Amino acid sequence: MSCSIPLAQYLFSRLRQLNCHSLHGVPGDFTLRALDTLPESGVRWIGNSSELCAGYAADGYARAAALARTTASPQSAVPRVGALFTTYGVGELSAINAVAGSYAESVPVVHFVGTPSRRQWRSTACIHHTLGDGRMHVYAEMAKQITCAQADLSCDDVGEAVERYDRALEECVKQSKPIYVNLPSDMISQRVPSSLLSRPLHLQPAPNDKTEEDAVVATILSRIHSAQMPLAIADGLGYQWDLAEEVNELIRLTDIPATCFSAGKGLVDESLPSWIGPLGAPTEYSKSTDLALLFGPLLSDTNTAGWSAVPDPDVSISFGLDYVCIGPTTHHLRGKPTLQKLILRLQEGLAKRTHREGIKRSDHVAPGSSSSIGQDAFWSRMSSWLKPYDTVLLANGTPLIGGRDMRLPSPVQVIASGIWCSIGHMLPAAQGVAAAKRDHGTPGRTVLFEGDGSFQVTCQSISDIIRDKLDVTIFMANNAGYTYERLLHGLDAAYNDVPAWRYMDAARFFGAKENSETYPVLSRKVQTWGELEEVLADERVGDGRGLKMIDVVMGPEDVPEASRAGLKTAGDALRAM
Amino acid sequence: MSCSIPLAQYLFSRLRQLNCHSLHGVPGDFTLRALDTLPESGVRWIGNSSELCAGYAADGYARAAALARTTASPQSAVPRVGALFTTYGVGELSAINAVAGSYAESVPVVHFVGTPSRRQWRSTACIHHTLGDGRMHVYAEMAKQITCAQADLSCDDVGEAVERYDRALEECVKQSKPIYVNLPSDMISQRVPSSLLSRPLHLQPAPNDKTEEDAVVATILSRIHSAQMPLAIADGLGYQWDLAEEVNELIRLTDIPATCFSAGKGLVDESLPSWIGPLGAPTEYSKSTDLALLFGPLLSDTNTAGWSAVPDPDVSISFGLDYVCIGPTTHHLRGKPTLQKLILRLQEGLAKRTHREGIKRSDHVAPGSSSSIGQDAFWSRMSSWLKPYDTVLLANGTPLIGGRDMRLPSPVQVIASGIWCSIGHMLPAAQGVAAAKRDHGTPGRTVLFEGDGSFQVTCQSISDIIRDKLDVTIFMANNAGYTYERLLHGLDAAYNDVPAWRYMDAARFFGAKENSETYPVLSRKVQTWGELEEVLADERVGDGRGLKMIDVVMGPEDVPEASRAGLKTAGDALRAM
Repeated sequence: MSCSIPLAQYLFSRLRQLNCHSLHGVPGDFTLRALDTLPESGVRWIGNSSELCAGYAADGYARAAALARTTASPQSAVPRVGALFTTYGVGELSAINAVAGSYAESVPVVHFVGTPSRRQWRSTACIHHTLGDGRMHVYAEMAKQITCAQADLSCDDVGEAVERYDRALEECVKQSKPIYVNLPSDMISQRVPSSLLSRPLHLQPAPNDKTEEDAVVATILSRIHSAQMPLAIADGLGYQWDLAEEVNELIRLTDIPATCFSAGKGLVDESLPSWIGPLGAPTEYSKSTDLALLFGPLLSDTNTAGWSAVPDPDVSISFGLDYVCIGPTTHHLRGKPTLQKLILRLQEGLAKRTHREGIKRSDHVAPGSSSSIGQDAFWSRMSSWLKPYDTVLLANGTPLIGGRDMRLPSPVQVIASGIWCSIGHMLPAAQGVAAAKRDHGTPGRTVLFEGDGSFQVTCQSISDIIRDKLDVTIFMANNAGYTYERLLHGLDAAYNDVPAWRYMDAARFFGAKENSETYPVLSRKVQTWGELEEVLADERVGDGRGLKMIDVVMGPEDVPEASRAGLKTAGDALRAM
Repeated sequence: MSCSIPLAQYLFSRLRQLNCHSLHGVPGDFTLRALDTLPESGVRWIGNSSELCAGYAADGYARAAALARTTASPQSAVPRVGALFTTYGVGELSAINAVAGSYAESVPVVHFVGTPSRRQWRSTACIHHTLGDGRMHVYAEMAKQITCAQADLSCDDVGEAVERYDRALEECVKQSKPIYVNLPSDMISQRVPSSLLSRPLHLQPAPNDKTEEDAVVATILSRIHSAQMPLAIADGLGYQWDLAEEVNELIRLTDIPATCFSAGKGLVDESLPSWIGPLGAPTEYSKSTDLALLFGPLLSDTNTAGWSAVPDPDVSISFGLDYVCIGPTTHHLRGKPTLQKLILRLQEGLAKRTHREGIKRSDHVAPGSSSSIGQDAFWSRMSSWLKPYDTVLLANGTPLIGGRDMRLPSPVQVIASGIWCSIGHMLPAAQGVAAAKRDHGTPGRTVLFEGDGSFQVTCQSISDIIRDKLDVTIFMANNAGYTYERLLHGLDAAYNDVPAWRYMDAARFFGAKENSETYPVLSRKVQTWGELEEVLADERVGDGRGLKMIDVVMGPEDVPEASRAGLKTAGDALRAM
């Protein structure tokens, strides 16, 4: 016997089928009743303190799913998306920066917006949260610019609404981009046959054209065989496009010297013999390469040292979600299956190449215990503190550049922004990652390297972390300002200062219970190398349980040495304009 | 001898001419160098912790200018606008909800966005903060939807850029709406003759057609003479459209019973004999009125008890910025000069009408000192604590409805959202108000009635207040959740809870110095009536200097009685959909 369920329950049950167990957001009058259907849908509400935090958290949740996919057993449903629910106008616009970032960095997030009733949509009445001029579609128009599909559920036929939603959801997964779902308040409880939930979603894109794929693979094989100075470069979209396994297998098979741009940090197993470290600036080798294999490229200026580290396009082969580019020629082939076939061919035919020397793990020379904490020593030291399965988030600022130079254990997922570079992104994203790790049973800690300027933008995420008892470890590079910007321009300018907050009071202020058995909270401020070592040696810090905040005091003008030249060049470019 | 100045200095100097002394925002690499020109422009940088806070603060600054205009001496330049500076993409999108709110509620804010260089605009390169697909104009397209004019300064000729900017700035003032200024990074230092700053801006709209104005005034006069049950209703846009003086003069001259919708609170001098209290719900009188004069109407559902309190349009005459509506007929006349002529005619000809009885200030009956603090008693008590020239901000939630029922001294400006109703708006707006009061030398305290849910959205504004040593007094209705939403739907639902923060630690956490002589900070938690009375009697609380945070613990389901029925109706409507 078929029974019926409210439309909202249908929508959320679909999320659960995609292994999204958590819905982030802030309630509003147009959303309230939909939230009542969450328990039946098997989806948990994570009420965030602000919509921007919710949007970034949903982004982090979806990014974490990438790691969960690689560790999931073949039988289990693989997690696919993050999800966000905000109210009309005021709510959705507060989250729009986060959703745009998901779009720019190819992260699949479902953005539900609770909107006025269909009657009100037709009336263009002067409803609260509108602009007061009857233009009710304005926000949906904005959202079109930054989502790959839109499901407008303000239709007469609820069956049609279901169709629109399912199609958009399929695009979300297939294109790995956010979608926008307009849910009018009177559609929430429209009844839908529950049997519709058993109809399969079509998440698989069209298969590659075998002839074209074979030809492309043959070409690439031949190029690999003939290359004298090949180079493999992992980049940021490789995570969202699930290329990690293939990238590492290819490097293992071929011993091609392997590197990454900032956003691709962590994709390549850095213990592989041919790992040569990140490509923070062009090298003699990268400038002379005769075959650059790019995986999930995201070639923005900030991600590639102002494009100076991007190899000659004529010798480049790029693997994307739905394209493979050989030099100037774009082939409409999915990157992942193309890589899989390439690997098969390599396994069949290729004699293992001469072993190419990678980099050695440099011995960490510890500063004296009363020394202040310098950026270079800090990042070097943190390399050995990290463990396999950690998810590491690098805030936009010095962590993004310092974290790139760590030598990572494997597997470690790194979340580092390749193009969006929005200050404040990573703390809420860490909340989302921690929620995803719990939902999916993914092992490893959630470790955020935060900046003080970033922290101030979205600090209320600490409350969201505490409220949901999530496990997040935060190292705060406390350097009293926007140090990254300082190095670009205005070294001593007051506009690059941020006020000194008492970060060690954060957990308390945001409501953490003291001495809780079930949810440990730990805050430490470290100003010297000795204090840092003490904290790192403390198992209560290292266990990753509960919330840890380590306030690491660093110099306002200190940046990793490797990045100083690049920042100077970028600053000079700004001034020369 | 004419000298030249950088374009950025020209832009900011124009702000200063409009008596905007403060620029709110968050720096980014595309904005840094422009900030260097602020000191020469006579404009101060207020670095906010987040762009959303900056946007709301600029909105508050511009709203406060309305009060400053009424108190300014005729010789001094009247303040006109608020201003906001964010970086491209990530910055501007984080502020877009605030700017849209300024648009919806007719607040003139200049939004500068520091963007990539003109060369980069032409190249559509893969620059950070873009979506990575070459669509660099996307954000400007979004901004077009929520601003009344746009100045794109990415032009070859800097003279043309100046023209575009001046024209947009004029529209900002004349239309009383936000504008968008695209400032490419390489335009910042283009030289402009400083003499251009002496060219007058054309801020005066075209004068009314005298014939039409005379006819309209005659009609209105005759309607006032013949009306048996006239009613004057002040509403939210009356502040931004500078109607306060005329509204009060008209009520004084005619003794027409006067009321307001929520957003118009404070416009009418509540000590006038014909003040009958706010129109929170329809009354017998409002339903039977044969002449409703509406001043600055903003007839949204939330502002008018679901439109039930809106008088019959056929008997209504509305005074807007650039229109006067008599019944169904719209006249393209500026409301303010039309009202001024109407007042002249009234002064010439009208015998003062029979005195109509207004409401009496009800005696406040104080609860026992150990009683808990109920909403009704609280708002009644606060009425007598307020003083003339206070600016009172009502957060979206219970303060919006409770504050409406206070009996105010005069003049008091109330900032209450009539249509945008965005949670988190009012704390940053209070920061902007306090900055404006200091800049313009406007007397009176800045008093915010905040909600805990609202506070959590934009809490970092406390840091912005402290950093700039601004004078703000905050009463927090701490009722453990979204009480307004609870009463609509989900009375006990967990999604309407907000986590308990330690609000009394806020000032400390956000960096306030303890025991500072120059910037006093005071935090008090009150749970009983006696504690509240003690705090209100304390001159250190009442002096308005520095930052005061009064955490007022209230019942999670308590709302002002007068609003309970309306909330129930609205909730029933939501459920019945």
